[in-house]
Amino acid sequence: MNNCPYWEDDYFEMVSLGLIKEISRTSESKIVLLVIDGLGGLPNPQTGKTELETARTPNLDALAAKSICGLSEPISPGITPGSAPGHLALFGYNPVTFNIGRGVLEALGIDFNLEPGDIAARGNFCTLDKAGLITDRRAGRISTEQNAKLCQLIDGIEIDRVKVIVRPVKEHRLVVVFRGEGINADISDSDPQQTGVAPKDVIAKYAIARRMAGIANQFISQAKVILAGHYPANMIILRGFSQRPKFPTMNEIYKLKPAAITSYPMYRGLAKAVGMEILKTGTTIEDEFETLKNNFKNYDFFFIHIKETDAAGEDGDFSRKVTLIEQVDKALDGLTSLEPDVIVVTSDHSTPALLKGHSWHPLPVLLYSKWCRPDRVSQFSESACISGGLGRLPATEIMPLAMANALKLDKFGA
Amino acid sequence: MNNCPYWEDDYFEMVSLGLIKEISRTSESKIVLLVIDGLGGLPNPQTGKTELETARTPNLDALAAKSICGLSEPISPGITPGSAPGHLALFGYNPVTFNIGRGVLEALGIDFNLEPGDIAARGNFCTLDKAGLITDRRAGRISTEQNAKLCQLIDGIEIDRVKVIVRPVKEHRLVVVFRGEGINADISDSDPQQTGVAPKDVIAKYAIARRMAGIANQFISQAKVILAGHYPANMIILRGFSQRPKFPTMNEIYKLKPAAITSYPMYRGLAKAVGMEILKTGTTIEDEFETLKNNFKNYDFFFIHIKETDAAGEDGDFSRKVTLIEQVDKALDGLTSLEPDVIVVTSDHSTPALLKGHSWHPLPVLLYSKWCRPDRVSQFSESACISGGLGRLPATEIMPLAMANALKLDKFGA
Repeated sequence: MNNCPYWEDDYFEMVSLGLIKEISRTSESKIVLLVIDGLGGLPNPQTGKTELETARTPNLDALAAKSICGLSEPISPGITPGSAPGHLALFGYNPVTFNIGRGVLEALGIDFNLEPGDIAARGNFCTLDKAGLITDRRAGRISTEQNAKLCQLIDGIEIDRVKVIVRPVKEHRLVVVFRGEGINADISDSDPQQTGVAPKDVIAKYAIARRMAGIANQFISQAKVILAGHYPANMIILRGFSQRPKFPTMNEIYKLKPAAITSYPMYRGLAKAVGMEILKTGTTIEDEFETLKNNFKNYDFFFIHIKETDAAGEDGDFSRKVTLIEQVDKALDGLTSLEPDVIVVTSDHSTPALLKGHSWHPLPVLLYSKWCRPDRVSQFSESACISGGLGRLPATEIMPLAMANALKLDKFGA
Repeated sequence: MNNCPYWEDDYFEMVSLGLIKEISRTSESKIVLLVIDGLGGLPNPQTGKTELETARTPNLDALAAKSICGLSEPISPGITPGSAPGHLALFGYNPVTFNIGRGVLEALGIDFNLEPGDIAARGNFCTLDKAGLITDRRAGRISTEQNAKLCQLIDGIEIDRVKVIVRPVKEHRLVVVFRGEGINADISDSDPQQTGVAPKDVIAKYAIARRMAGIANQFISQAKVILAGHYPANMIILRGFSQRPKFPTMNEIYKLKPAAITSYPMYRGLAKAVGMEILKTGTTIEDEFETLKNNFKNYDFFFIHIKETDAAGEDGDFSRKVTLIEQVDKALDGLTSLEPDVIVVTSDHSTPALLKGHSWHPLPVLLYSKWCRPDRVSQFSESACISGGLGRLPATEIMPLAMANALKLDKFGA
């Protein structure tokens, strides 16, 4: 076992996707996966009902009645997922195995076109005092405009034939991309994740990464000199050095021709990472369903992403989240009227307004198909789905079930 | 990956069976596993009830009421099992790890006595046109009698001290067994699984299998010459070269003395593969329960297999499947009156009449024992079992639960 280059889980996951790959087949049937971001909630103490339970959702309830329902665990019980692992699990990829580094995620989030071999890091502008200790890890949350100007000052530096590209994100956040030969992402963060200490030197985790650690440290030193007069943003700290991973595509695994309908860059990046085609769409739910309709003939798998519910949860706005869920419900006919063979409605993680952030609570999931063997659940809600026929299931099991219900999987074994 | 001495699954599975092996003990208590083949179904669109839900099953329902119930996943959600993996899972063997090759399964299916080292292949008589291309992979489904005559023509050929034994199965199907020294199953199929192309040359997957590939190709060439005048069955195509695997026996794992009661060859073969003794029995349910009664004192584990329900499902005959389930229910007293300590009633896979074939839907399972801690389920059906105390569970967990309920497992750890 000690000679195994992989952890057992990794291997297991590969074998399991390998099994699906072996038995998947192309057919005319169509699957639609509707992801209502941050859908899961917690009960309002006054009513005892979650956001979803408070919303009037006659269309989702009617669909649940002819579906098989359950509660999905994005990673494993108790684990609060970020958006990336939450979505990867829904696409059938074990999110612990198929990990995307922080730097790469940030680059995907601003639609930065990472080339093979590029190493991306997430950065913060921060404030150093005269002793060189960090007093504010976010440089007083400088404006995005200020950020853009500062990024230009440190963009394009070249060190030992490695080009360093710097791009602003929001407020104090930036992306740093290293491009050149002989570089390696196995280096430590310079961000100490606390104040009152100096930024850390970047250290190579293996001998092979020593050159890269040197380049990163040189870049940070040069940036420090350039930024010295720009208090409070007089330094940068970097973390999550990573390379864009090479995942097997959904076409390779499922033999699907998949398309993504989402207006947010990070989700487009995630969809691209698993080989989906990105369809141009507008920003409203109706726009997205219109895009689905216009492209329905050309693909056999659609991922439709609704972002606003998550933002409302993050803001702690219970009633806005309720209203947004009701909007999805009202627009649902735009999806169901196309009569996809399989419809899955679920989410990537919970974002209870009461917690103002992502949480570990499992997600309601409904799976409709002609062959789904409906259970007795007739309401799409957290508490109703507990007694659904899918039980409490890992999110990674949703894709195999959708494939089976679309009659796109052959029998295993004789 | 290549340096791993085990597939991680294997390893994982071995560890898990290893745990059971460590804590299992022999006792007087008796376990009966009743497998109603293809039991799971889909609701009749007119009534909303599955075959099992339509059947009048007062005895199974009464047993369910004092049992703990659940829904069993033979392999994993969405995966439709063949009969072999479906049963191996019920015996507690991870069916992805403990795989049985197609050739071996076919040999088991005709009760062919495979000796250690034998390599079996599944074959088809097929039709070649003048250009040597396959026009029909099943030779017009020749009669079983015709098949038997043709098999005699190519049976007993010896190549380089390896004997080639040929036996007919049904219609166009045959089994070819290679017996001799220095042979290896790691060779490719000659069956191209399509028409319009020539049969493929058999190729060694590893250098060690080159001799075997040569022998297989020589045998096929000789068969082609002999069969030339026997249009439409003027050629054979082979696939699934495999050796009988060496599985740990149920006695080694569970310390049981297990017996199988089944009238179909393939299931006898599967039972033999895990070390069960095969009891002579008749073809009806009553015959099987009579066999159970007559041998009840001599074994502590019984696998009883009822095949006809699966055949009815495959034929798409909803009402025949209902009738057969009712027959099992009526005969059930022949089992319960013996008062086994543990009774498990379940199935290897679903065969909904609506799909006319195996499917991925999980199976109702009931486990009765004096110590089972019954749930509130009082009906043996797909929808009632959803809310059972076992939840949705992998089929491989049933045997450990049966062992525990028979008080045949020691405590793990101090």
